[in-house]
This record gives sequence, structure tokens and C-alpha cells, in this order.
Amino acid sequence: MLAPVKFAEFVDTNADKFIQRLADAVAIPSVSGDPAHREDVVKMAHYLNSQLISLGVTTELRDLGKHVMDGQELSLPPAILGRIGDDPKKKTILIYGHFDVQPANKSDGWDTEPFKLTVHSKTGRLIGRGSTDDKGPILGWLNVLEAHKSLGLDLPVNLRFCFEGMEESGSEGLDELILGEVKKEKEGWFYGVDCVCISDNYWLNDRTPCLTYGLRGITYFQITVQGPARDLHSGMFGRTVHEPMTDLIALMGKLVAPDGKILITGIDEMVPAADEEEKTLYTSLDYSIADVEDAVGGQIAISADKVTVLMGRMRMPSLSLHDIEGGAGARTVIPAKVTGKFSIRLVPPQTPEKVDPLVVKYLEAEFAKLNSKSTLTIECSPGGKPWVADIKHWNYEAAIKATQAVYKQQPDLTREGGSIPVTLTFAKSLGVNILLLPMGRGDDGAHSTNEKLDRSNFIEGTKLLGTYLYEAAAIPA
Amino acid sequence: MLAPVKFAEFVDTNADKFIQRLADAVAIPSVSGDPAHREDVVKMAHYLNSQLISLGVTTELRDLGKHVMDGQELSLPPAILGRIGDDPKKKTILIYGHFDVQPANKSDGWDTEPFKLTVHSKTGRLIGRGSTDDKGPILGWLNVLEAHKSLGLDLPVNLRFCFEGMEESGSEGLDELILGEVKKEKEGWFYGVDCVCISDNYWLNDRTPCLTYGLRGITYFQITVQGPARDLHSGMFGRTVHEPMTDLIALMGKLVAPDGKILITGIDEMVPAADEEEKTLYTSLDYSIADVEDAVGGQIAISADKVTVLMGRMRMPSLSLHDIEGGAGARTVIPAKVTGKFSIRLVPPQTPEKVDPLVVKYLEAEFAKLNSKSTLTIECSPGGKPWVADIKHWNYEAAIKATQAVYKQQPDLTREGGSIPVTLTFAKSLGVNILLLPMGRGDDGAHSTNEKLDRSNFIEGTKLLGTYLYEAAAIPA
Ligand SMILES: [Zn+2]
Ligand SMILES: [Zn+2]
Repeated sequence: MLAPVKFAEFVDTNADKFIQRLADAVAIPSVSGDPAHREDVVKMAHYLNSQLISLGVTTELRDLGKHVMDGQELSLPPAILGRIGDDPKKKTILIYGHFDVQPANKSDGWDTEPFKLTVHSKTGRLIGRGSTDDKGPILGWLNVLEAHKSLGLDLPVNLRFCFEGMEESGSEGLDELILGEVKKEKEGWFYGVDCVCISDNYWLNDRTPCLTYGLRGITYFQITVQGPARDLHSGMFGRTVHEPMTDLIALMGKLVAPDGKILITGIDEMVPAADEEEKTLYTSLDYSIADVEDAVGGQIAISADKVTVLMGRMRMPSLSLHDIEGGAGARTVIPAKVTGKFSIRLVPPQTPEKVDPLVVKYLEAEFAKLNSKSTLTIECSPGGKPWVADIKHWNYEAAIKATQAVYKQQPDLTREGGSIPVTLTFAKSLGVNILLLPMGRGDDGAHSTNEKLDRSNFIEGTKLLGTYLYEAAAIPA
Repeated sequence: MLAPVKFAEFVDTNADKFIQRLADAVAIPSVSGDPAHREDVVKMAHYLNSQLISLGVTTELRDLGKHVMDGQELSLPPAILGRIGDDPKKKTILIYGHFDVQPANKSDGWDTEPFKLTVHSKTGRLIGRGSTDDKGPILGWLNVLEAHKSLGLDLPVNLRFCFEGMEESGSEGLDELILGEVKKEKEGWFYGVDCVCISDNYWLNDRTPCLTYGLRGITYFQITVQGPARDLHSGMFGRTVHEPMTDLIALMGKLVAPDGKILITGIDEMVPAADEEEKTLYTSLDYSIADVEDAVGGQIAISADKVTVLMGRMRMPSLSLHDIEGGAGARTVIPAKVTGKFSIRLVPPQTPEKVDPLVVKYLEAEFAKLNSKSTLTIECSPGGKPWVADIKHWNYEAAIKATQAVYKQQPDLTREGGSIPVTLTFAKSLGVNILLLPMGRGDDGAHSTNEKLDRSNFIEGTKLLGTYLYEAAAIPA
């Protein structure tokens, strides 16, 4: 089922009005990480809530309690739960988004005022904090609702909304909210949800729309080597005692090869090799070594082979060494106790529960080989599991068809190297297919200065969201 | 020639007077590293100068100019140059000492006021900042002068003095002073000096007197690995690009083994093995694995063999890894640029000039093996050369005989793992034998809280200094 032609026409005709709404939203500096802006996050919640109500959505502003930030006890901004449509013959899709933003000051290097949406006349870029992350996508959904209301069209599916105001600050209170609602079953806001759609990531590049079907998990490690009771003078004790820094660096040097291969026994091996069909997915992605090297500002890709690099980011685990703490500023000192920090990004079937014991066992075995008399302690902090969706599900089929219809392009099917924790929470608690359907491009600079959303991504993206609903409605479940 | 019996008797009889003089000296908080105490260092110089003059020494308070400390321009405290005796038939011995001290506050953990000499009634410890480092040894020489003046005895040798007030702050101005005096030849204060005696180090333990005939040199390195233009998110770029921290840790892991062996080609190999005679020296030293482990507060000696541990400190080079800078506090960040710091303690025939190129060559070769696309830069900062004296020289023979006479013990003949830069300056500019003749014990805590000098070390140490002069005078040069 194609979306009605008049829907797309309405979106084009009302583009300037939609952009004005984005400007209104950007003007509210809803920075969740700054106590001084907490009231602005609340204001943003009320602003969105009124808009939803005026567009026919039944809502609840849910109080999430209090928390402590920078030593102050603060009320968390409310989450917004919403419902429109209750037709048992229609599919029900849950939409997630966040209305808080990262901090921004003009003095950070912005060319324009970050909380004043600037429309660049030549490029059509909509520049402002939150334009792409994540106010633009949320407003895309409001645009879809407004088009249907104005045109007197019924929505093709039932919609549920879950918008939060703490995503940039650890999504405090959100997991409890979601798990609580799921537990309520019929009485909960998420009852009957058939799939989830999250617009909070980006295209792989600045050219080709994409759908994202996987995220890596993460597990963190902190290893400490301790020797003497206090820092020692290297003249007095150099080559006399085992030095903790020597042992720690020897140990950390055994974790990962310069080409990214993880040396810990059993970690890389846990991941099945990609078959030919899967490799084709990576070959077909619109991405080049130049893209990655442009993004990082250096000719440092681990391979000249695009598939190796893309699989390194999307479907292989990675181990990064972050820091060594406790070193001596003075160049005559043997530090008594040093701590190394590293983390491993995980892909299925890896989980912190499966990986952590292998890491501990390996570290202990390698440390034993050093024959050092220092003491090793290992701390594991499980982050989150990886997530991969079934891309043959109707949820993805609908998004692919919608992309073809709106952008006249085949979308890239990507996995992300990072994590979006709410995805895991929904996956685990609802047990339904989840689609990550980005609106913005890879160069939007979500957490950077001069964050932008291209006008075409906002307008065509609004069409994409609406069209996706029609395609989803049309496919037999 | 034994020292006259009445010299030793005079020292015993006047012990309390000597201790009072030490108390007067300790009461002047001559902390060279604190601009607020600069006037106290100057006061200490004048105090010592008056004492020397009253004991018959011709002196000069030498202005060393100005320097900048903590952003302030300050006058350097004057050095004291002194001369007593001009008999061409006598040997001439140059005495070095420093009258400045390390900072000390009771709140650092002192049991007593640091600048009030406390005599512990049971142990006889003389507790106070500067008691052992280096006011006690300087006053030991004044005690010797006073004994001779009071007893109407001629000194058996001509003495020259060089006392400075900036030792704890890098000996600023001292090298220029020494080199300038040597250049003046007959007109200089150091003309005709036959040997040097420095009392500014410690016994190897708290039981056996020692003479020290060697010091290690040092050379410093800083290696930087740079990759991307900015820090990267490990989710986005983990296993996609070469990570500088991975490369740096791999490289630093190839420098030194956990047992202290230096892995850089040609460094350890540069040092000739000890022959049986030399090994005997180490076997005979009054030192145990328990001593080193007590000193460091951990059972971490690199070997259970005492000779290996002692040679590791005294006659082998050592490589210590001090720090890695530029790491990421956040556990999701790939740092863009990281710097590792290490240093190598040197022994003859090693010098920074010989060692640095080997280190650079090795680092470059090992970095090439990593096949990384990151960039490596290496900075070398030569510290100082090592120094070893001829222990068969009459200067040592005299000190050995004096120790036997005063302590009824054979002294340990030691080398120190650290460096005392003035030793090198004297060695190089005067070309004479230098003896390090410590007064205090290994547990004096020179730069620590509760610094002390044992009463017996002060009193018997005064006898040792005087007796050493008689023994030196007696041996045919
Ligand atoms: Zn976001
Ligand atoms: Zn000293």
C-alpha cells in the first residue's frame, strides 16, 4: 500500500511551517546534563505534550522521580507516553525519541547561535543543537500526525509514543518506566505493540539512506598492578624490584594487535565467520576507506579492504585501551600502583557474562607468565549486550520499501559499532522486532559544534516516516 | 698516622655542644625550593660563614646571580668558598656539602616539629629536617675544625670548602661556579686540590659504614604515537583504525622484561660482566633481600640472589617506565595522541651519547614491525653520565683505614643507583679522585618525614672525618 499522494504533497507544501516548528523546538535549550537547564527540559516536555494533544494523541506526562547531579538533588524531566489509534485490525508501532540535547555554547566553536535554528540559504542545512539529535526526528513524527489530521486521513497503523528527556544523561528512569509498563500488560501503554521504530542514529555516509539492524554491546575492564608500598626512586630501586608499570604494560600489550585482532583466547573465535550472503551486504554498502579516513582525520584505516574495515566496526568485537592511571609525573619515579583501563565492544553471540571470564582467565595466565611478584587485581564492569535484528522481518521490509519509494534508492543495511541502550530494553521486555530508522546523515555532527540536519533529510525524512507506516500496514504480518 | 687520641676525646667531651650547633642549624628552615624560605637559605649561608671564619677559615660568600622560581625572579643564595691551610708539603682536600634542605611541615606526618631538633632520649636519634641531609655532615667538618683550634693542633692536610644552598633545587649556578674557579687556575679557590670528599649520601643499611665509589648516569625518553586528528568514539571506530594507545603500549612493552633485563639491543651488552674479584665485593656487602624488601614495603625483589639484586642497583643499567600521558578518562574513547615516558640509568661505559642512538634505532625498528599507520616521534633528553672512582686510590685507602679505626668495622664499598651531579662536575673539571663518605644510615629518611641522624653517626662520624684527614696525610701520594 503506497502512502496517498496527497500526504507527500502536504509535507512539501508545509515544509516551511515544519521548519518553523523545528526552530521553536531548538530554541528551548533542553540540555539534560546541566542542572541550570533542567527547567528547559521540562519546558520542552510540556511543549511536545501540547503538540501531541493538539494532534489527537492521548498522552501522559510521567514523573520519573528525583536524582542527584553535580551534588544537587533534581527532579527528572517527565517522559511522555502517547497513544493514537486502537483498531485491533491494524498493526501497532511504538515510536521512541528523546527531546533532550547535548550542551552547546557558541564559544565552543559554533558559527551560529546553537539554540537559534539557522537555515543556510545555499546548502539548505538546518543548523542548531538538537536539529538532528533528536528533535528533528521527533518532529518528523509530529509532521506525519499533522498531515493526517489536516487531510482528514486515518493513520494506517496504531501508534504508541515513548519520548524521554534524559537520553544524553544516561536515560535515568527509563528502564524502570518501560519494564513497569510491560508488566502492566493490558493496562500498560505498550500493550499490543507489534514492533518498534527508533530514529536516533545516522546514515553511514552523507549520500545513502540506511536502516540499522545491529548494535555492539560493551564490557569494561580495569586492571591494577601493585608492588611496593609507596612510589620508589628509580635510582635507588631500578633493576632491584619488580616494577608495576613494566608488568601492566606487558599485560596490556597482550590484549590486542595493532591491526585490531583481539589476542585474548576465545574472544574473536566466538564470532562465526560471515557467509557469502552476509559479506555481500558489506560489499554493497556505500562506504569507502576514504570515508573512514576523512571522518577520523588521518590515513589510519586498519585495512585497505572496505569489507574488513566495515566488518571491524559492525560485526566484529573490538578492544580499545583507554588509559593507564597512577603513572609518575617525575621522570625519576617508579610508580607503586598503576591501573589500566580497556573495554571490549561485543557482537552476538558475545555477552559480558560469556566474555568476562575468558578475559579474566587470560589476564591471569599471561600475568603468571611474567613471573612477577607484583599483585594483579581485575575488575569487570559489564556494560550491555549486543543486539541484532532479523532484517527479513516485515518491519525492515516496510522500511526498505518506504526508502525506495521516497528516496528512489536502495537503503544501506548497517550495524553500528556503538550502543543505544534503550534498544536492548525494548528488545528484551517487548520481544518484538526493532528497527533503527535514521533521519540524518553521517556528517550531521550530532554531539559536535554546528550540528545540522539537512532540509531534505527533514522533509523527505518526514515522508519516509509516514510512508513506512503505510508499507508496514500493507505487509501481512 | 693515627689521629691524636685527644681529638677523639675532645669530640666525645663536646658532643652535647656539637648537638646544640646542629640544633641551631636545623632551626633555620633553609628550604631552597620555596621562595618564602629563600631568606632563610641566605641566613643559613651567613650562619655557616661566621662559624667558618671563627674557626680560622678564609671564606668568600659568592653571589650566584638570579633565577626564576614559581614565576618570581629571586636571588640565588650565595655559595660558600673556603680555605684553611696552604702548606705545599701537605695534601689538599676539597670538601663539598649543601646547607639547603627539602621542604617539611609537621602536617606531612612528622611526629615532631621538623625545624626543631629533637633528641630522642632512648634511641639517641637526632630528629629534624636537614639533620642527615646535609647539615649534620657539614657540621661534622666544623666540629673537626673546632677540635683542632681548641686543642691547638695543626690540621694534617690543607682544606678547601665548597658549600652550596641550592642542592635540593637543581644546584643552580654551581656548575658555572666550579668551572669558573677551575679556569682561574692559581687564582681559583680549587687550585692544588688533590682529591674531593663529599658527605651527602648514606650507608647501604643501618649497621655498616660504607664508602661509595660509583653513581649511575641517566638518560630520559619521551615517545609519542599519534593517529587520528582528534579523540574518537570507540563504538564508531573500534577495530576500524589503528589506535595510538595500542601501538604505544606494544612498543613500551618491548623495552624491559619484568625481571629488569633491558630488551633494547646493545644496552645490557655494553656493560662488561663482573669478574670474580668484583663479584666478591657484592657478596661481602652487608645487605640482604630482606633489607631491600623492607625498604620498599613489599616482597618484590627481582631475584632471591643478593648479588643479582645489588648488581642490578649498582653496576647494571636499569630502565623504568614512568607514565603514559594523553589517555582517555572516558571508557568509550580512543585517545588520538599518547605519550610514554621512560628513562634508563646508565653505568660505565654507557653515556647518553652512546645509548640514545641505540634506543632510537630499536624503537623505530620495533615500531615498523607493528605495521601501524600511526606516527611515532621520539625525544631524548640526556641527563648525566655515570661515574665510577678508582677504589685503589689513597683517598679510598685513607677512608677505609679511618673507618676501621673509628668503627672497628670494614666499610662496605658501594655504588649508588642514583646520581649526584656535582660529583660528575668535580670529576670532569678537577680530574682528581672523588670519595663519597656518608655520615648517616640507610634508614635516615633524607627526604622524608621524621628525617634523623643517629647521635652515634654524628659523633663517631665527626671522628671519622677527622681521622680520614690524618690517614690521607699519612699515605704517600
Ligand atoms: Zn540521540
Ligand atoms: Zn643531600
